[in-house]
Amino acid sequence: MGEQKHIVAKLAAAFQVRHVLLRQALAECLGTLILVMFGCASVAQLVLSRGSHSTFLSVNLAFGFAATLGILVSGQISGGHLNPAVTFALCLLRREPWRNFPLYFFFQTLGAFLGAAVVFGLYSDALLDFSQGELIVVGENATAGIFATYPSQHLSVVNGVLDQVIGTAALIVCILAIVDPHNNPTPKGLEAFTVGFVVLVIGLSMGFNSGYAVNPARDLGPRIFTAMAGWGGEVFTANSYWFFVPACAPFLGAAVGVLIYQLMIGHHLEGEVQEEQKKEEAEEERLKLSSTATDQDV
Amino acid sequence: MGEQKHIVAKLAAAFQVRHVLLRQALAECLGTLILVMFGCASVAQLVLSRGSHSTFLSVNLAFGFAATLGILVSGQISGGHLNPAVTFALCLLRREPWRNFPLYFFFQTLGAFLGAAVVFGLYSDALLDFSQGELIVVGENATAGIFATYPSQHLSVVNGVLDQVIGTAALIVCILAIVDPHNNPTPKGLEAFTVGFVVLVIGLSMGFNSGYAVNPARDLGPRIFTAMAGWGGEVFTANSYWFFVPACAPFLGAAVGVLIYQLMIGHHLEGEVQEEQKKEEAEEERLKLSSTATDQDV
Amino acid sequence: MGEQKHIVAKLAAAFQVRHVLLRQALAECLGTLILVMFGCASVAQLVLSRGSHSTFLSVNLAFGFAATLGILVSGQISGGHLNPAVTFALCLLRREPWRNFPLYFFFQTLGAFLGAAVVFGLYSDALLDFSQGELIVVGENATAGIFATYPSQHLSVVNGVLDQVIGTAALIVCILAIVDPHNNPTPKGLEAFTVGFVVLVIGLSMGFNSGYAVNPARDLGPRIFTAMAGWGGEVFTANSYWFFVPACAPFLGAAVGVLIYQLMIGHHLEGEVQEEQKKEEAEEERLKLSSTATDQDV
Amino acid sequence: MGEQKHIVAKLAAAFQVRHVLLRQALAECLGTLILVMFGCASVAQLVLSRGSHSTFLSVNLAFGFAATLGILVSGQISGGHLNPAVTFALCLLRREPWRNFPLYFFFQTLGAFLGAAVVFGLYSDALLDFSQGELIVVGENATAGIFATYPSQHLSVVNGVLDQVIGTAALIVCILAIVDPHNNPTPKGLEAFTVGFVVLVIGLSMGFNSGYAVNPARDLGPRIFTAMAGWGGEVFTANSYWFFVPACAPFLGAAVGVLIYQLMIGHHLEGEVQEEQKKEEAEEERLKLSSTATDQDV
Repeated sequence: MGEQKHIVAKLAAAFQVRHVLLRQALAECLGTLILVMFGCASVAQLVLSRGSHSTFLSVNLAFGFAATLGILVSGQISGGHLNPAVTFALCLLRREPWRNFPLYFFFQTLGAFLGAAVVFGLYSDALLDFSQGELIVVGENATAGIFATYPSQHLSVVNGVLDQVIGTAALIVCILAIVDPHNNPTPKGLEAFTVGFVVLVIGLSMGFNSGYAVNPARDLGPRIFTAMAGWGGEVFTANSYWFFVPACAPFLGAAVGVLIYQLMIGHHLEGEVQEEQKKEEAEEERLKLSSTATDQDV
Repeated sequence: MGEQKHIVAKLAAAFQVRHVLLRQALAECLGTLILVMFGCASVAQLVLSRGSHSTFLSVNLAFGFAATLGILVSGQISGGHLNPAVTFALCLLRREPWRNFPLYFFFQTLGAFLGAAVVFGLYSDALLDFSQGELIVVGENATAGIFATYPSQHLSVVNGVLDQVIGTAALIVCILAIVDPHNNPTPKGLEAFTVGFVVLVIGLSMGFNSGYAVNPARDLGPRIFTAMAGWGGEVFTANSYWFFVPACAPFLGAAVGVLIYQLMIGHHLEGEVQEEQKKEEAEEERLKLSSTATDQDV
Repeated sequence: MGEQKHIVAKLAAAFQVRHVLLRQALAECLGTLILVMFGCASVAQLVLSRGSHSTFLSVNLAFGFAATLGILVSGQISGGHLNPAVTFALCLLRREPWRNFPLYFFFQTLGAFLGAAVVFGLYSDALLDFSQGELIVVGENATAGIFATYPSQHLSVVNGVLDQVIGTAALIVCILAIVDPHNNPTPKGLEAFTVGFVVLVIGLSMGFNSGYAVNPARDLGPRIFTAMAGWGGEVFTANSYWFFVPACAPFLGAAVGVLIYQLMIGHHLEGEVQEEQKKEEAEEERLKLSSTATDQDV
Repeated sequence: MGEQKHIVAKLAAAFQVRHVLLRQALAECLGTLILVMFGCASVAQLVLSRGSHSTFLSVNLAFGFAATLGILVSGQISGGHLNPAVTFALCLLRREPWRNFPLYFFFQTLGAFLGAAVVFGLYSDALLDFSQGELIVVGENATAGIFATYPSQHLSVVNGVLDQVIGTAALIVCILAIVDPHNNPTPKGLEAFTVGFVVLVIGLSMGFNSGYAVNPARDLGPRIFTAMAGWGGEVFTANSYWFFVPACAPFLGAAVGVLIYQLMIGHHLEGEVQEEQKKEEAEEERLKLSSTATDQDV
């Protein structure tokens, strides 16, 4: 096996990435790949087995814990956002620099694209068997919904935007509470699990309108993949250009979530901390002054 | 983005709340909003999808983990009660001052009201589609049950009261064990998860009679919302004024739960701790006396 | 509220239990009550709703997390066995004195009896509604299975005994691994959750033969209750005195579980620890001797 | 009970295993036994109850938490691989010596064989009742699928190999992230739970093609058992020698998983740590030289 080790080492040397931002991008890519691979594969299992091997609850559990695993894999390196809306919220709060945003967005979408490709490979036989070799976007035997989200029949565009805004805002409020160092601390290392439960709960409660994308990368990457893999441009034009909604509305939702959390919880905690710091500084200043005074007296 | 930051800062300064009790009230409001938003939205997903996107188990999981998330968001500031019956139990035990009770109750109910409003917005198209534009309280295609609880046909009022008393007592016994510093310690930061599992188990086992409100705010807030949003006064008069039961019986259950836990577990642990403290004090007293005696001898 | 506090204090003084063993017995009683109340109520929810509000998976989850909650409530005081077979296994290993066994057994069974009574109160209307006022042990509309376990039609007595032996042995092997201080440590405070997952997995995999009692108290207490509450003596005579199997076979299973764990894992770990201790002692002895020798030399 | 203790002690002395590798092998055997016993029994519960006592989700949960419990029981002694593909991956990374591989493989397969035997004993009546005394490999009323995996009708061999490679690679990437000391640390003692969630998610998303073996021992052991217990050689020949796929493809998947994790995450983290070590060593060297120089100056 020495030779095999040797090859790995040579490959490793060639691939070793020293640029921090690129490594973060790679981690986001792999994390989002894991999220979409497990998540969309669970939808595939539900659709292709026509319910015999899955339920909607199984899909909710899969997306939730897939988020957990994606964060566990990438968290140490990139923070494990896996979602441009999360990156956007952290940029709004100046916890992540704005210049990282486009790179994160691109690699998250790339990861989601690759994750969709893995699902396509995994279930290629089943996909062809399901609809007799056709890849259908809308209607009975449609399989495009395995990869990207499409609205239910009852949903208007306005309600669809509201759906994505509410879902993303709820996600962001919970994530900000989980990672806020001044708030109730989730035990170190359990943040990934807690975020997984947030995604699970969103799926259990907000999944009926349009399948709770709440993540532009998770929706856009697989949609581009389906357009290229044989479903065609209809994946973009279907439901009067629905794809705009999960690609854009989550950013609005992220801003709303940041506002709600900051105004109701985070801002007061921060203010408290800052005031304590100011008091301490004032105290120190006073002590320094008085000690200087004492020195002068001497 | 500097301007946007500026606006946030100005808004923040205007909204910064320094009064501790008001901040606690805001936190309870947001926490209960999260609990009801996720919980009632999961009932909506079950009812409106006519079971295709959910099961009763999904609702149980959603309410359980929604409680977890609500507590995580608000716990550091207000304790994360999210339930007037929990506040009542802690007041009975003198762990929370009685003067906080009305404010907590009001803001919990307000949070539940707002949570119901979010659910209404989220599923407004689906609600109208479900019953052809009508908002019905009782009978086939009824949707009021998405927001507040209504009894099953088999349930008498006496059994209904017993149901709420048993459910709330079970909730309180478990919560008191989880937060009792003298009892088996739940790992720091996992209290929220443990309470979520309590709510889950109550839903799995006590949900068939009337939907396990066990929380006056969770029931009253959304009921008031439905009365105002188009379901009308029937939400109060239906099932011979059923709304009284989930609004009042949980307080009785809380008292029963406090009694059971204190008499069977908590009181003995406290007594033990107190006796040890007394012994230590007596010992110190003795030592002081003897040392005084020695001093006098000298 | 001063008066109410006064009454609680008076009651408390009257009920304060100083005898350690009696407090342990009370804790086991309450813990088993919680286990059976939630567990059997979830079976009631499945049976009485004819599946509309529950599935077998919900029952598995309820029994698992009910065990978690029962252990959390009682663990600090009594160890949280909630099961005479667990107490038996710990007595076999000399970790619990044999003289505690009868008292634990009695109070666990009492707790299970009371838990069944709570379930009967909770669902009394639904029970009467389900079978038009009759309480039936065997056949269609039977409700005795809500409280105690009865075998499936395919099950012979020999296979039934094997079922209880295998289930209890599996339970004991896992519990011994969880509480073994020399083995892979479950994080402090998470033992209760881990045991809950053991109970969950047993229900998911060994629940089809006869409903996985694996606990003489959990079966016997509710069975006695049903005999007294109106189902009559048939609960003991049904299926050719089946009640003997869940009442006795778990003890055999506990012994088998102890043997398997000790022979395959625990014994070697203990032996290792003991050998290290012996080596250390020998080393100390040698040092002492040599130092004595040195002293004599001097 | 003194006598019983005496017998246990004598048996114990006879069985005490001092050879470390053999103890590790025993632990792997018991751990895999637990995994397969709970996992395959849950499939049995689904198949034999014809869905009344289980769903595919129950099977997913059972396999996931069975992995958790198997790891908890064996982890301290052997690392809790329970899967030759995991051992293979750790050998590739030089974290486990290659000479352990055959022994681990053998004892993991033996444990899986014994686990299948326990399931056969547990459900022997139900198995015979299910198909009127016949043990059938393929077609309606087939029960061989309870023990080993068989492909769905739509699956070609190429897609089957891909299915096992993708599933095992996903498993390995997640496990390597969980146990990587340089990566985001899972809290000590929670690794077993996290791996359980990985197995759960794989089942939720990759279970439709051929039942997600992703573990040569888990598939081969029970398959050998069924061949011997009455299903006959058809368990090997069925679906054109399908058994080769779950027995071999997971090793390829493990190699792929190691490559992906190392190239995208692990290698860069290791490189970073090594560079820091080199820097520190260079610094020390420099200090030593300069101090020598100073000495010489003196």
